[in-house]
Amino acid sequence: MAYHEKIADLNGKYAASFDKGDLPLPPSKKVIVLTCMDARVEPASQLGINLGEAHVIRNAGGLAKDALRSIVISQRLLGTREVAIFHHTDCGMLTFTNEVIRDQVKSEEAGNAAIVSAVDSIDFLPFPDLVQSVKDDVKFVKENPLVLDGTTVTGWTYDVRTGKVAQIV
Amino acid sequence: MAYHEKIADLNGKYAASFDKGDLPLPPSKKVIVLTCMDARVEPASQLGINLGEAHVIRNAGGLAKDALRSIVISQRLLGTREVAIFHHTDCGMLTFTNEVIRDQVKSEEAGNAAIVSAVDSIDFLPFPDLVQSVKDDVKFVKENPLVLDGTTVTGWTYDVRTGKVAQIV
Repeated sequence: MAYHEKIADLNGKYAASFDKGDLPLPPSKKVIVLTCMDARVEPASQLGINLGEAHVIRNAGGLAKDALRSIVISQRLLGTREVAIFHHTDCGMLTFTNEVIRDQVKSEEAGNAAIVSAVDSIDFLPFPDLVQSVKDDVKFVKENPLVLDGTTVTGWTYDVRTGKVAQIV
Repeated sequence: MAYHEKIADLNGKYAASFDKGDLPLPPSKKVIVLTCMDARVEPASQLGINLGEAHVIRNAGGLAKDALRSIVISQRLLGTREVAIFHHTDCGMLTFTNEVIRDQVKSEEAGNAAIVSAVDSIDFLPFPDLVQSVKDDVKFVKENPLVLDGTTVTGWTYDVRTGKVAQIV
């Protein structure tokens, strides 16, 4: 059975005992957690985030460059003042380059000119070094003019084998 | 105490009983869940996602246009074949326009020319209608040439007052 065929049943069990319907829109801890889409990452339990406390932004790698629209909305409209960035061990972003993924897509869609142009226009933002990628992302957020002055920015790694975080910045 | 000062302690409690260190990189359910960064959204519990099962992409609104890089990486390199898109009631994206947020940022950063240029270059992707935004996002994914043919795409709303989902597409 496909996942979408199970969603109503899975959600029904959750909704049956749901009692947090009065939480306000702005995150109570005034924090953004930025992390990877990886299936082994689950911020609420791993980082102790309760419902209503934090904005959680997730993309391939947990990369700030691809999260700027969301960060600006979070800070300017919803009052967050802290950003915590988590990249993780065994991340898919460590395993390829722009050339590799572009060549793969082109070979899978041979002869489709629209695909060639579209895939060449995307920077997939792969990174070769986990710790350096965290440092680079913290720097990007701290130095970006759209991010509010005085924002606290920290950078961390999460180990998918041990479940442990380590602070880098 | 700021959130980052509590992370090590909160994570330590999780890691102490962590026993999922052998999960593989590709999501076992071959699914991408795309949803909003909103603090009242927590996909794992609300949608019954276990560790290792799904890529979870989150941004302001849960918008596919801002997730394309991640979707391509997920499908082409990590084998996902289904996308489930969730937007939610009381979303911040329903409350503003590009003009509103751009004017606000410019007034907060008066006189900074770099800010004016930077904020004008971002489409913040606000939407005025929740159900229509879900339909538009499903259409965007289904029609995008970079998304694999045969991908199952569903669209849903999540009600932050009741904890319940409803399928739109």
